[in-house]
Amino acid sequence: MKKKLSLLGSTGSIGIQTLDVIREHSERLQLEAVSAGENIKELRNVIQEFSPKLVSVKLEQDALTLQREFPKVDFSYGSQGLIDVATYSTTDTLVNAVLGSVGLPATLKAIESGKHIALANKETLVTAGHLVMEAAKKHQVTILPVDSEHSALFQALNGEKLEQVDRLILTASGGSFRDKSREDLSNVSLQDALNHPNWSMGAKITIDSATMMNKGLEVIEAHVLFGIPYDQIDVVLHRESIIHSLVEFQDTSVMAQLGTPDMRVPIQYALTYPDRLPRKEAKRLNLVEIGKLHFEEMNLERFKALRLAYDAGRVGGSMTTVMNAANESAVKLFLQEKISFLEIDEVIERAMMSHGTIAAPDLDTILEIDAVTRKSIENVIN
Amino acid sequence: MKKKLSLLGSTGSIGIQTLDVIREHSERLQLEAVSAGENIKELRNVIQEFSPKLVSVKLEQDALTLQREFPKVDFSYGSQGLIDVATYSTTDTLVNAVLGSVGLPATLKAIESGKHIALANKETLVTAGHLVMEAAKKHQVTILPVDSEHSALFQALNGEKLEQVDRLILTASGGSFRDKSREDLSNVSLQDALNHPNWSMGAKITIDSATMMNKGLEVIEAHVLFGIPYDQIDVVLHRESIIHSLVEFQDTSVMAQLGTPDMRVPIQYALTYPDRLPRKEAKRLNLVEIGKLHFEEMNLERFKALRLAYDAGRVGGSMTTVMNAANESAVKLFLQEKISFLEIDEVIERAMMSHGTIAAPDLDTILEIDAVTRKSIENVIN
Repeated sequence: MKKKLSLLGSTGSIGIQTLDVIREHSERLQLEAVSAGENIKELRNVIQEFSPKLVSVKLEQDALTLQREFPKVDFSYGSQGLIDVATYSTTDTLVNAVLGSVGLPATLKAIESGKHIALANKETLVTAGHLVMEAAKKHQVTILPVDSEHSALFQALNGEKLEQVDRLILTASGGSFRDKSREDLSNVSLQDALNHPNWSMGAKITIDSATMMNKGLEVIEAHVLFGIPYDQIDVVLHRESIIHSLVEFQDTSVMAQLGTPDMRVPIQYALTYPDRLPRKEAKRLNLVEIGKLHFEEMNLERFKALRLAYDAGRVGGSMTTVMNAANESAVKLFLQEKISFLEIDEVIERAMMSHGTIAAPDLDTILEIDAVTRKSIENVIN
Repeated sequence: MKKKLSLLGSTGSIGIQTLDVIREHSERLQLEAVSAGENIKELRNVIQEFSPKLVSVKLEQDALTLQREFPKVDFSYGSQGLIDVATYSTTDTLVNAVLGSVGLPATLKAIESGKHIALANKETLVTAGHLVMEAAKKHQVTILPVDSEHSALFQALNGEKLEQVDRLILTASGGSFRDKSREDLSNVSLQDALNHPNWSMGAKITIDSATMMNKGLEVIEAHVLFGIPYDQIDVVLHRESIIHSLVEFQDTSVMAQLGTPDMRVPIQYALTYPDRLPRKEAKRLNLVEIGKLHFEEMNLERFKALRLAYDAGRVGGSMTTVMNAANESAVKLFLQEKISFLEIDEVIERAMMSHGTIAAPDLDTILEIDAVTRKSIENVIN
């Protein structure tokens, strides 16, 4: 039996690599419903190759254009389109590979429809982790992390008991600026920031890696996914990105997942779990060739965004929503070259400081706080 | 319910550390029957502290002496004594921590009595792996490896499917002489050889580490335990002994078990599996403090004993019995300073070259080949 998939965000970095995995294992995986934003050219190729039954785009105009070209396919658009794809009747699993908190309502609807979730969108868990995990428990669906670090943790926890875990250790490559001091960062350019040493990823996550907010989002995501307190989640600088993360158990044994940096490994694992299928053309890990693995302490003054994320996580409630929305806005402004690199942290910190936390916000409250946070930041700067 | 244990080899390095684990988890573990060789002084302490019901020693005279001192305890001796301890009626699990192939008949008898086996004695699987694994299958008992490398592999395979394994990667510290060339080895002393950089172990295994035969025994043990072909078992030099071994799966994902070098971790894991109990006074892994992990290619010309082990394993049948017996004899002669360090490999190679392999030897044949091999080596040298 083939596993039938919905995919949100098919033309982004994770989306494209998800399609690689589906292509390589077409005997096991089938794309039923798919969304894209405004990259219609790429989406046409996806429709031609994978023949999905339902396709959603951002704009109504694009949906109408494509409908004429592909009369046998159903089309939808906008935020309702994301939900239509996420809840498509014949699919078992939703791959959420959109960027930012925009994927949240569709993910919740998919869970309510009983779909398992392969989650590449970490902002969903940061913004509304308690709602997602409660819904997953209620509807008995599995949240399968696609992020390399959380996939590593998930794999290291295979066959183990969560209550016997002592510590989660997330590894961080350090991003584009790992060898710069905080002073050095005052005049770095957008181009410098976009140049990640190990991973090929989208612009937003590459900037998040440079600020270390990406690791901050991951710390919160790990807390939400595995229910481990923040004091038991560590981050260690590991420049080679070979050990993707580690779990320390109370017997002092540490389990780790390793591999060459390639997002298709965790994507495939999430889509074929508990099986591990062959990856024909993948580069295998060669420890002798690599020679050395390095580990350094993570400096929370140097990587201030990581400290902000720990702070937000410990406060909890709506604070992580604010932190995430402020980060998304700040990164957007940095990508538009409207603020400097160091101003990203400042924007986030100011937003957090001016927020009065709500302990257990519902979806409407979260979406409102998210929107208000973005608006206030973008209004001030523009 | 407490797990009731038999322990063979209570005064050796693994035996003492097994007692540490039992002491630390007396709420879960109970020592019922125990053996020792000639270290009666130490054994007295064991009897006083753990109150076993049955005790066996090497010599009848020692058994009689102890019987007078401990009238409520049952005593036995010699090879029958080992079997009596291994098959003691009330125990669930046998910890086999004796040295060399002497533990084989007792282990087989324990399996036939339905005991699970926590196996620290790698020579048992090298000498007669097919008999042990067949018996374990027939009597539905589990063989739980205590060796740090095989425990690491066992842990990395937790929740996984053996048929999806691509490669086992054993790590080797390199032993006392890892930084010496083969030429440098011609005049090393016994004292030099006994000085292992990472692990505190008995004399035999420390010499086996220096020759790299220890890793050879482990390669064969891994093949027997997990049924993975020799071409898919690699050894990599890893001087820090922090990654205890790794499993590569066909999806290119690699799972590893790490920790500070401490045999009590794998011993405890074997005794409490599938649970992981706290280890209060243990040193936790601190990757930042360690800073770097190194990996180097294993040179099979430099570490000739490892090549001999791969050769013996690939030939199979009685060849691994001969290799193991020759190694035990050669190490004994080296410890008596009757042969030089480099002669250990030569003795093993000569024994292997003069042996006509029997494909699937039974226990009597194995014991005879083992005895003949030892005798011929020790007669020639003495």
